[in-house]
Amino acid sequence: MALIVQKFGGTSVGTTERIENVADRIGLFRDRGDDIVVVVSAMSGETNRLISLAQSISQKPNEREFDVLLSTGEQVTIALLSMALNKRGYEARSYTGSQVHILTDSAHNKARILDIEEKNLRTDLDKGRVIVVAGFQGVDEDGNITTLGRGGSDTTAVAIAAALKADECQIYTDVDGVYTTDPRVVPEATRLEKITFEEMLEMASLGSKVLQIRAVEFAGKYSVPLRVLSSFDEPNFDDEGANGTLITFEQDGEESEMEQALISGIAFNRDEAKLTILGVPDEPGVAYKILGPIGDSNIEIDMIIQNIGADGTTDFTFTVHRNDLEAAQEVLTNTAQELGAREVIGDDKIVKISIVGVGMRSHAGIASTMFKALAEEGININMISTSEIKISVVVDEKYLELGVRTLHAAFDLAE
Amino acid sequence: MALIVQKFGGTSVGTTERIENVADRIGLFRDRGDDIVVVVSAMSGETNRLISLAQSISQKPNEREFDVLLSTGEQVTIALLSMALNKRGYEARSYTGSQVHILTDSAHNKARILDIEEKNLRTDLDKGRVIVVAGFQGVDEDGNITTLGRGGSDTTAVAIAAALKADECQIYTDVDGVYTTDPRVVPEATRLEKITFEEMLEMASLGSKVLQIRAVEFAGKYSVPLRVLSSFDEPNFDDEGANGTLITFEQDGEESEMEQALISGIAFNRDEAKLTILGVPDEPGVAYKILGPIGDSNIEIDMIIQNIGADGTTDFTFTVHRNDLEAAQEVLTNTAQELGAREVIGDDKIVKISIVGVGMRSHAGIASTMFKALAEEGININMISTSEIKISVVVDEKYLELGVRTLHAAFDLAE
Repeated sequence: MALIVQKFGGTSVGTTERIENVADRIGLFRDRGDDIVVVVSAMSGETNRLISLAQSISQKPNEREFDVLLSTGEQVTIALLSMALNKRGYEARSYTGSQVHILTDSAHNKARILDIEEKNLRTDLDKGRVIVVAGFQGVDEDGNITTLGRGGSDTTAVAIAAALKADECQIYTDVDGVYTTDPRVVPEATRLEKITFEEMLEMASLGSKVLQIRAVEFAGKYSVPLRVLSSFDEPNFDDEGANGTLITFEQDGEESEMEQALISGIAFNRDEAKLTILGVPDEPGVAYKILGPIGDSNIEIDMIIQNIGADGTTDFTFTVHRNDLEAAQEVLTNTAQELGAREVIGDDKIVKISIVGVGMRSHAGIASTMFKALAEEGININMISTSEIKISVVVDEKYLELGVRTLHAAFDLAE
Repeated sequence: MALIVQKFGGTSVGTTERIENVADRIGLFRDRGDDIVVVVSAMSGETNRLISLAQSISQKPNEREFDVLLSTGEQVTIALLSMALNKRGYEARSYTGSQVHILTDSAHNKARILDIEEKNLRTDLDKGRVIVVAGFQGVDEDGNITTLGRGGSDTTAVAIAAALKADECQIYTDVDGVYTTDPRVVPEATRLEKITFEEMLEMASLGSKVLQIRAVEFAGKYSVPLRVLSSFDEPNFDDEGANGTLITFEQDGEESEMEQALISGIAFNRDEAKLTILGVPDEPGVAYKILGPIGDSNIEIDMIIQNIGADGTTDFTFTVHRNDLEAAQEVLTNTAQELGAREVIGDDKIVKISIVGVGMRSHAGIASTMFKALAEEGININMISTSEIKISVVVDEKYLELGVRTLHAAFDLAE
């Protein structure tokens, strides 16, 4: 008897047959007595279909209207899943983001959740209803439909779990948990039974597609117990710990992790692009002058590197999401003119590879092991960025697989 | 400088190319200075796609969820049309039924409009925005999404025109007006420049697909000037009267119609099915006992005939929409058991053919001309129903084309 929020992604609801399977799974939990709130994405392929409709009208469709369009994708899924549940005798009700009242800011296409009205949800749960919520979408103060941007359905699920103080938020995907790295790149990759919130945050931010970083952040902020598991495996009610990967929040539990490997996993990200502005006159505030307009354009910046040149100028490099390259390059070219910089270079033929592990905090030599392993394979490093629990390098796209495999082996993750 | 509500059906917005054409047309009206509210249907094919998704899950999908599903169809169109308008520099905003706040009752799949909030629409019009509204949908008092049933988009358009007291409500279709009958059946059919509201009501109720009866009723109730015209012809700003067919509301203008043909058109309807209950003990209140439960099941009844039999029993025949045959037959079978009736027979191989004309009010001989013409072609009549301005007959489905052509010729409508 628990309150569980379950999120099913586009692949898990990709056909009406799979939607029926999801309904069967939810039924097993209901039969056990659990209260269930389900969050679903659009059926796989649907979002792309809608995007191509929009693009056949405009390459830069009006952002407000783009959200009106995209939000129909999840609305189709909630209706179909609720039908499947009702057919099975489980009373179910679907809600769009607007109907739940998932209040967001007005940043169309990348809105942030501000508040979730829990009253209606509680009423339905009290009546024994399964609640089926459209992920990825909300509504702003003026009643305009918004979407949360990439992977927003995970964020919806965690936010609802936080609002309802759910016992667990289960994210169902097409993989059965978080792996030491992508098994498609390294077949020896192994599944992690547990991973700390901070490690998961890094894995997500570094391109591990299993969970969206915003969802992990949200889960961390509200300490929502989060589990990643496969929508194709049978639920294991005898030993829940054996299902998928649990994201843990042990604040002071580092001692219990003594025997843990130093490195938990190798993450990588193909979605980044690199922008360099060369020959910027070096003066106080130049970083702000360069990055301020990028931020104002709602473009997120990831890695940042500044080199001081010999001639009193400075070179400045940063990475953005590949989709934002064109827009960022436009902004940066304007900035370059204003600052009297020499040149702007954009490059989307890069990848970021990262090693992640809470264990590395207190261990020296991790970085040098990483750089040595890459050097031995002749892989040139373009950028480096470090944090307490991860080290990331940017390399040429062509080195992605070789680099990940090399590091997976160098840190003995296959055992 | 007029306030015009324009409604475009599924064919007119069937592809993104056609949506761009609709945007061009709206632009012409905006350039002339008109204020425009647009109501659109789902892109043709989309509603069927959604229905087949639902039916692959359940033959009788949950009605609330069916509305959640279907309403996405129009939502896609409003977003795409608004994008196309914004691209052209015409500021446009889309609204779902729920966003406008088209309040309906809670009869899912066949809801009725109760009220339209005009405040938001006025605000947008004052700002010079084109308003693009999703037809066919609304929201009930509890915030549940509803749909208006067959052809509901026409009703949405007329209701908005009534709420805003628009100068004209233009219904764009794939034909250029109302014809004396369906030109696909009778190539000699001619376009009517004007038709009275009452005639149009009969034409619509009798299956002329050009306008939905509910829309015509609404237009009549609020005296909304209604025009049917083609979305493929150029707008004719020089002589608006020459465009399409205008539905007129001349209350006491019969004199001006002196030279009008007695009969305006021949309508037909393939969507009906016939139900007969045989051998009902004839007692007071039997009609109510038979038809009450049908009405309670939200099934609309069209024609009703009661014959008194020789043995103190009565035979009762009525028609319903073909989609409702199965449900009606179920209800009627129960009633038959309760009343001790002999048998229930359902037949969906019928059509209704009607002659319509305000002119027939004061002219005798119309009915006999009709029956004689049909008899001469050997067409057997199953049911007859008359009103002041129409005579309908139910005949076997196979006689549809022959019957319509025969009557079109008998009343000289080709000239």
